[in-house]
Amino acid sequence: MTVTNLFDDLRARADGENFTEIMSREGVCIERIVSSGQSTPPDKPHRQTHDEWVVLLAGSADLRIEGEAERNLRPGDHVFIAAHRAHWVTRTAKDEPTIWLAIHFS
Amino acid sequence: MTVTNLFDDLRARADGENFTEIMSREGVCIERIVSSGQSTPPDKPHRQTHDEWVVLLAGSADLRIEGEAERNLRPGDHVFIAAHRAHWVTRTAKDEPTIWLAIHFS
Repeated sequence: MTVTNLFDDLRARADGENFTEIMSREGVCIERIVSSGQSTPPDKPHRQTHDEWVVLLAGSADLRIEGEAERNLRPGDHVFIAAHRAHWVTRTAKDEPTIWLAIHFS
Repeated sequence: MTVTNLFDDLRARADGENFTEIMSREGVCIERIVSSGQSTPPDKPHRQTHDEWVVLLAGSADLRIEGEAERNLRPGDHVFIAAHRAHWVTRTAKDEPTIWLAIHFS
């Protein structure tokens, strides 16, 4: 699917969390993520092998990164998540889509 | 200046176009740009030596890229601008800040 507008095609609402690659090139991948109420199970943190920068563009979420205080994210808030660092999205809005833009550095 | 929220600290309104580096690492720079009515002079196009991906997050703008039709950009619209390609932001909103997020690939 080509997404020319990050706020369009929010089909994820019915189908669970949705991932769309916007652009990929050596060392960098730009991805849109649409959440609709999902959260990370406490015993199954995300933990990836690459650094990631992410900004919340719409909706709201709570994010916990290993060793840091939990943060409530509103549109525009951005976060750097270092490789191998466990993190949990402990809440995403249930009444509206939560749209993230993630830059993955591989 | 550290900007932890892309929609905060929009001091550019009074001072012309404003550029804030959000993050920089080998090969990639993430930058926020805040425009407040500026446009590119027809005889002085932007033309950079690296590829750029940019998304308009707030406000509105018209963008012309050499060899392509002019586009009216609304929040969420994203564009890839290849290195060395002349481009002009022919309009940005005068009544509200226009916020861009640019990923520069060096």
